[in-house]
Amino acid sequence: MEDGAKLGVGRRAVLAGPLALDGGGALSPVEIAYDTYGTLAPDGGNAVLICHALTMDQHVASRSPRTGKPGWWANVVGPGLAIDTDRHFVVCANVLGSCLGSSGPASIDPATGGPFAMRFPVITVRDMVRAQAMLLDHLGVETLRAVVGGSMGGMQALSWAATYPERVRACVAVATAARHTAQNIAFHEVGRQAVMADPRWAEGDYYDAEPPAAGLAVARMAAHITYLSEAGLTEKFGRKLQARPLYPQGAKGFGFDADFQVESYLRHQGISFTDRFDANSYLYITRAMDYFDLAEEHGGRLADAFAGAAAGGTRFCLVSFDTDWLYPTAESRAVVRALHAAGAPASFVELSSPYGHDAFLLDSPEMEAVLAGFLGGLA
Amino acid sequence: MEDGAKLGVGRRAVLAGPLALDGGGALSPVEIAYDTYGTLAPDGGNAVLICHALTMDQHVASRSPRTGKPGWWANVVGPGLAIDTDRHFVVCANVLGSCLGSSGPASIDPATGGPFAMRFPVITVRDMVRAQAMLLDHLGVETLRAVVGGSMGGMQALSWAATYPERVRACVAVATAARHTAQNIAFHEVGRQAVMADPRWAEGDYYDAEPPAAGLAVARMAAHITYLSEAGLTEKFGRKLQARPLYPQGAKGFGFDADFQVESYLRHQGISFTDRFDANSYLYITRAMDYFDLAEEHGGRLADAFAGAAAGGTRFCLVSFDTDWLYPTAESRAVVRALHAAGAPASFVELSSPYGHDAFLLDSPEMEAVLAGFLGGLA
Repeated sequence: MEDGAKLGVGRRAVLAGPLALDGGGALSPVEIAYDTYGTLAPDGGNAVLICHALTMDQHVASRSPRTGKPGWWANVVGPGLAIDTDRHFVVCANVLGSCLGSSGPASIDPATGGPFAMRFPVITVRDMVRAQAMLLDHLGVETLRAVVGGSMGGMQALSWAATYPERVRACVAVATAARHTAQNIAFHEVGRQAVMADPRWAEGDYYDAEPPAAGLAVARMAAHITYLSEAGLTEKFGRKLQARPLYPQGAKGFGFDADFQVESYLRHQGISFTDRFDANSYLYITRAMDYFDLAEEHGGRLADAFAGAAAGGTRFCLVSFDTDWLYPTAESRAVVRALHAAGAPASFVELSSPYGHDAFLLDSPEMEAVLAGFLGGLA
Repeated sequence: MEDGAKLGVGRRAVLAGPLALDGGGALSPVEIAYDTYGTLAPDGGNAVLICHALTMDQHVASRSPRTGKPGWWANVVGPGLAIDTDRHFVVCANVLGSCLGSSGPASIDPATGGPFAMRFPVITVRDMVRAQAMLLDHLGVETLRAVVGGSMGGMQALSWAATYPERVRACVAVATAARHTAQNIAFHEVGRQAVMADPRWAEGDYYDAEPPAAGLAVARMAAHITYLSEAGLTEKFGRKLQARPLYPQGAKGFGFDADFQVESYLRHQGISFTDRFDANSYLYITRAMDYFDLAEEHGGRLADAFAGAAAGGTRFCLVSFDTDWLYPTAESRAVVRALHAAGAPASFVELSSPYGHDAFLLDSPEMEAVLAGFLGGLA
């Protein structure tokens, strides 16, 4: 393990591997950037792994050294909070394939001395989970009191319970699904095509030149719409116009500048994303999500994915949000039905929020109470 | 009027204008490509204007000379069909701003002898309607038995009733809304940014070079998702993989080719669109739709938009589809409430379909029965 603090990634482990991948082949070495909070109990029984979403990072509860922003779940993880770092030893790792400290397409390929770019192997959510398991081995964490995640983090949490049921005592999956639907895949494909249509993408070999920021910004804009609800967009922006010097209340410009506030907001979301994320990582991680289908990995029956967890007594907690149309409540219900069919104990709650999929990242006293209650009951 | 048959647009009228525009300024001359079906009655009382959607054309019931495909509503408009050309004189015109025969950014600017490109004035749905009114004047059609349209065509139909109530005896608006919501604007803005991010767009001056096909294809892909329902995508594609030589049932490629059938379908939709549509027209027409808010044009109260129509006895028929999330049933209900508040007679039906917004373009015996019944009652 090297000290990665100088690199702005927090801590980083360089694991010898090899990490065998679902697509065939293996990765060696495997670098995993991570952060931890709290202290591992002498019996090792208080570890909680938190898994992040598509573009998030390992800084779940600490300020990012790159962006200077607070942790993405700082309202949920910390001393006395729902995931209480006075009681739990919390680990959060940047996923395999990302660009925030862990091995991904922007990493140096030891075979060539240059960036992997599109020569990085295509990975799956299960590969991300396998890399996290290697990190936990390295940290001396044998079993997890809980694995917790939202969105793609929830997919990893479910995959953990399916892949390493003996290591998972509880699984919390928020605003997520056990598979990507055709519509989910379609939106991701639009984003990938936007990146790959940008001439600066250059088949992925742009690390010595200007990156494909214009294409990545369009991809982010399209994805961002799916993170919000129609009602939330209407409440926040409606048809309100941008203020202009002569029109403080806003007026149509009869041109193609951002007239509506929602246009300006989306453009900002797109452009600011390109400062913090690598376009090739966006391709790889969206691909991993599109490949995710926990039932398919277990002979086509989702309940069979949870047979090991049910046998070992793993407990499950599912949370969805009523305005989330990216991973709607029906997807969580399908997981709960499969858990019940497998005989695994599962609690489920649908929370009400105007904020769509993004609700799991925002202040939600109800969600925090559900997490605190579930985790408190495990100790 | 010149004969435009040689140009592959059907008929075309060159109107002197000037056409005064909502954004200020005027257009002169105004070219309008159109098609007609049936015969105008001696008393002029059997004219029906059909208004088309974003990327459609004037060939509502006749084979397009450009694409060779049947009319886009060939199942609805024709002898003995729901809009019966044995009884009605049907007119359909390519909208102002389009690229299929009517004046738009690809047209020649008489002031310069070159294409307007982005020097074409930004237009509104009401401007499209004003241009259609000029065409009807030219054709000797004073009043319309009905104006009929779906999607953006429905916006034009509602705008007709608001702008020229004395010329409209009935208005049929299918799968549409009286305004664009923040989410509608957001999706269009993604498409515009995709076009404008393509270096080949070149600020719109690409008519002597390669057009920005890659950006326009991405725009079309994003839009296309909004035309379909999640359930329809799941039914049609689900997670089915493309067949490959060694894997006739499909297998993941662990790469970035189109693995899933839905990816291949979307890519095809995007690429084929660029053969038939001009990128600048896409910018202009989406802008017109985003600007559309019938209430805003009438002091903020939608009922006031229909005061003239109510006074003149114009009858309305609204149709929505239950899986249409682009212009959901709630938007049609808002129109019906406003019509009732204005005292205008309005009938409304929500039809069931798995096909989302696109349902209005597909075979729908229920929709055809509603249209036939409503139009039959007017004669």
